Amino acid sequence: MGLFRAEGVVYKPVQETDTASPPPPQPNQFYLTANVKAPRMAGFLVKVFVWLLESPILGGLLLYILKRNNLIHKFISYAELEDSPLYVPLHPYDSEDLKEQEIKHIDSDLSPPEKVQQAIDCLPLSSEKQPFFHRWTVLDYSKAYSSGDITPRMVAERFIAAVRESSNPPMKMSFFINYNEEDILKQATESTLRYKKGEPISVLDGVLIAVKDEIDCSPYPTTGGTKWLHKVRPCTGDACCVMRLRLCGAILVGKTNMHELGAGTSGINPHYGVARNPYDPSKITGGSSSGSAAVVAAGLCPVALGVDGGGSVRMPAALCGVVGFKPTFGRIPLSGVLPLNWTVGMVGILAATVEDALVVYAAINGPLPSQQPTVSLPKVSFPLLKSATSISAIKLAKYDARYGWKVVEVTIPNIEVMRLAHYLTIGSECSTSLSSYLQKINCSDQGWDARVALSVYGSFSSQEYIKAQKIRNHQMQIHRNVFAKADVIVVPTTGVTAYEIKDDALKTGELDYIYGAALVRYQIAGNFLGLPAVTVPVGYDTAGLPIGLQFIGKPWSEPTLMHIAFAMQALCISEFRKPKVFHDLLYKE
Amino acid sequence: MGLFRAEGVVYKPVQETDTASPPPPQPNQFYLTANVKAPRMAGFLVKVFVWLLESPILGGLLLYILKRNNLIHKFISYAELEDSPLYVPLHPYDSEDLKEQEIKHIDSDLSPPEKVQQAIDCLPLSSEKQPFFHRWTVLDYSKAYSSGDITPRMVAERFIAAVRESSNPPMKMSFFINYNEEDILKQATESTLRYKKGEPISVLDGVLIAVKDEIDCSPYPTTGGTKWLHKVRPCTGDACCVMRLRLCGAILVGKTNMHELGAGTSGINPHYGVARNPYDPSKITGGSSSGSAAVVAAGLCPVALGVDGGGSVRMPAALCGVVGFKPTFGRIPLSGVLPLNWTVGMVGILAATVEDALVVYAAINGPLPSQQPTVSLPKVSFPLLKSATSISAIKLAKYDARYGWKVVEVTIPNIEVMRLAHYLTIGSECSTSLSSYLQKINCSDQGWDARVALSVYGSFSSQEYIKAQKIRNHQMQIHRNVFAKADVIVVPTTGVTAYEIKDDALKTGELDYIYGAALVRYQIAGNFLGLPAVTVPVGYDTAGLPIGLQFIGKPWSEPTLMHIAFAMQALCISEFRKPKVFHDLLYKE
Repeated sequence: MGLFRAEGVVYKPVQETDTASPPPPQPNQFYLTANVKAPRMAGFLVKVFVWLLESPILGGLLLYILKRNNLIHKFISYAELEDSPLYVPLHPYDSEDLKEQEIKHIDSDLSPPEKVQQAIDCLPLSSEKQPFFHRWTVLDYSKAYSSGDITPRMVAERFIAAVRESSNPPMKMSFFINYNEEDILKQATESTLRYKKGEPISVLDGVLIAVKDEIDCSPYPTTGGTKWLHKVRPCTGDACCVMRLRLCGAILVGKTNMHELGAGTSGINPHYGVARNPYDPSKITGGSSSGSAAVVAAGLCPVALGVDGGGSVRMPAALCGVVGFKPTFGRIPLSGVLPLNWTVGMVGILAATVEDALVVYAAINGPLPSQQPTVSLPKVSFPLLKSATSISAIKLAKYDARYGWKVVEVTIPNIEVMRLAHYLTIGSECSTSLSSYLQKINCSDQGWDARVALSVYGSFSSQEYIKAQKIRNHQMQIHRNVFAKADVIVVPTTGVTAYEIKDDALKTGELDYIYGAALVRYQIAGNFLGLPAVTVPVGYDTAGLPIGLQFIGKPWSEPTLMHIAFAMQALCISEFRKPKVFHDLLYKE
Repeated sequence: MGLFRAEGVVYKPVQETDTASPPPPQPNQFYLTANVKAPRMAGFLVKVFVWLLESPILGGLLLYILKRNNLIHKFISYAELEDSPLYVPLHPYDSEDLKEQEIKHIDSDLSPPEKVQQAIDCLPLSSEKQPFFHRWTVLDYSKAYSSGDITPRMVAERFIAAVRESSNPPMKMSFFINYNEEDILKQATESTLRYKKGEPISVLDGVLIAVKDEIDCSPYPTTGGTKWLHKVRPCTGDACCVMRLRLCGAILVGKTNMHELGAGTSGINPHYGVARNPYDPSKITGGSSSGSAAVVAAGLCPVALGVDGGGSVRMPAALCGVVGFKPTFGRIPLSGVLPLNWTVGMVGILAATVEDALVVYAAINGPLPSQQPTVSLPKVSFPLLKSATSISAIKLAKYDARYGWKVVEVTIPNIEVMRLAHYLTIGSECSTSLSSYLQKINCSDQGWDARVALSVYGSFSSQEYIKAQKIRNHQMQIHRNVFAKADVIVVPTTGVTAYEIKDDALKTGELDYIYGAALVRYQIAGNFLGLPAVTVPVGYDTAGLPIGLQFIGKPWSEPTLMHIAFAMQALCISEFRKPKVFHDLLYKE
């Protein structure tokens, strides 16, 4: 409307955009710090804000001001760019592009257990347990079960006791939204029997795996972190990825806590409690896959599934000091996953180690257009995005020295614009997906912070949505240029480490778009452009909280990515610190 | 907003949707007649309406009411359906699907003239000129030039005289927005020289081809039917499709009139005049490729290019009694075509005969993923969409008898919903594409009816846009089910024949959404689902105005489609009537 017309930025054509290092004189143009104008709100203040937002005239005006003050108008709504919209980040599977690397091909007709075995065969031989590394891996479990030292049934019982202990006072760490002791023990008993007969299905047999409550898994409802979604959308069976894990003999131990509807980054859920960070229970886990990160960090499961629509796997993984892996868009079937977004989300894996992420990835990954590469040890160079933290820089220097991999510095323009365009996209898709349900439920069934999110999500125009897709195309081309120079982009996973959980947020959730923007800003290329990405814990801040380093790869380059991440893990593992809250389920009595 | 919450329809899953014949007891559910609530407006009334629409608060309210009253809320905004959104109607090129037919493969590395020759070689031998058919074809021109009976230069001179005559009083048929006599004569002289040397480039050498003013063609600006677009977006050379025709030796005779920005169906342009229907100059041509249809009907060119984003090639072709052909989405490169929409538009061909459409199509079609089928004479069955007019039914009965092709009746549910979802999509894309230009121009540079269209186009939310893409997916699946039963859908091209041009529309354009809906309702699958479609003139209404019958094919099945259309043309050609306005450029002196 003419009354409100604002100035938009003009994006230069991609060929005129500089991605070279050293960065140009005006770094702000490229690394504009998240310029978020929205005060933290929780408690009573959120309730007043919701009331204002949901009122017809005032709400519209308020949303307009919010979007303008947070640069959405300038960078998206009124932006000028020539690129066509790119609606879905589907990458052609171009084996030419992967040919340079030595790759093994996995026959995609293999069953999940066969794929798992093939992944195990590819793993580097290492695997004497290192005394300073207090995490049991999938292979540790598998070996212990096979040797008869311990049974899946015993581990399951310990698991149940540990979950009870951590969820009750004084710890009150709400890891799970749902878990069914009877169902867990039944699966564990069956697995124990298979090991007794000497017939485990795969190395995943008897391994405990938790599932984010955004993914269907029998016999649980899928709440999406809400009090209502499972009532209008009954879960009718396992999601495809869960089914594949079940086929490998994994024990599915329940549905982990999450940020309501995935619509936030703190992981604080007003209905099911706060997951809390095992490294410091007064701190957040990050979200939205908060429970999945926390159970892995706390030693309850070596692996958990999450969904990553805007860093929702990698961010909590980084904050909780575990590995978080998001495959290429389209790699893992989305059937049985809540359709909270269509064009940016992908099932992801949270694991104690890169190896475990690789093994579970082998089990759940979908069929590919043609051939599928598996692990290899490629010679690669990777660009380091400017502004990596000093710890990362030190690690990368070692990396370079040890492996002879070349690090070049690059500039990726407009990452803050990409964050905004992604926010607009995921918000529009989420609110559209839920719109017919939301008509039927009572407002008061929703958390206060989710109501704010849905109000903002529902405020975008079709023009803004399409503009965001034009920016998607623009950024895709820029990233192609970067990948012409190097194979992997290395960047800190989050802009901050875990921050404090304040009491006023417990009942209403919390609005903190400033921290939110800092948490996600480096992860968005994985979602908006559909690129594979993995975060590896590389150290700790002065408060002892974990720091993650992220590797973002070319489309379909998961094996390369995993191998580079594996090497980084090897560099960092000796510095591992045990979390304050930690359950060793595989101890010998 | 809660205040305005409306009821939406619930779409059944596709597998529960009936496409079988006979239609179910409640035909309205399926063939809901376009229920458009918007009175015709022109002249002063449009101006008042624009003033209201463009005022900030009242405009919003008015748009809300307009969308509600026209069932957009019920069928789209608040609709419930499970399908994921489908943003772009890209079809995998699956040669398996085409294997049943005997197909010849064209090497896609061939030059445009070589492709044209291959198409000519595939044409059935017929081609003694039938005395009752007053249209010269590409082959007629080519033979006449080769025999030396007449030269391209002579034809070009006659063309210029004819355009002058028809554009001046008393006829005032505004076929062209731009034509440059000097440039035409220069091309014609060169072609004449080639024929003199016995070296014509292809059968298209010296053939006059007109280009819709939405497609770049040197030396003309590309106005898009506006007074301003060419000022902010200079034309820098030929569009890809135009370049290919030029490579074949065609004479590009200028830029044809069109509905302003393609944002309407009447083809009445307030800036450049009304093209007028050669069968009755008091009637519309239909739009938006109004001039392209009229020049072919009037005998000025055997072929013209148009762009079909919502029936914009087929509709004026049907109303003007010529052939209109829209290829599969993605078939013809869009470079150099105004980006008025991204996901529904395609360059199309208007021609006097199916053969000519095929020849020009061979010249301009793009490279394909793998192999490309060419003409063949397949045995096909095709469903007849219910509500075909009686003339079409009679023709189809003959068809059946003559060729032994089986006609089955099917029901395609929700075609009216598809029209609305397409309207929302093309509107959102058009207004987004123009948004940065529109900020800079003076409102008064725009036609009144275009201003109304842009107001409505800009009023959709991102939720509505994404809902429309969910409906796209839903309809795509329904059409796949229909195509499992038969190869081609036969349906009237338009719901009405050409209607009267009223005086009050000449200066302001005309808003007539009722006629508009009737004109486009059967054509939308071609755009929204990206299917190839062709319209063939099959008869005349009681007022002597042409009726078109449309064939909609499976993705990439253009050759099949053309052959079926060719057979229909053979059935109808003896009933051909000469238009009132007709120029015979190939007469012998």
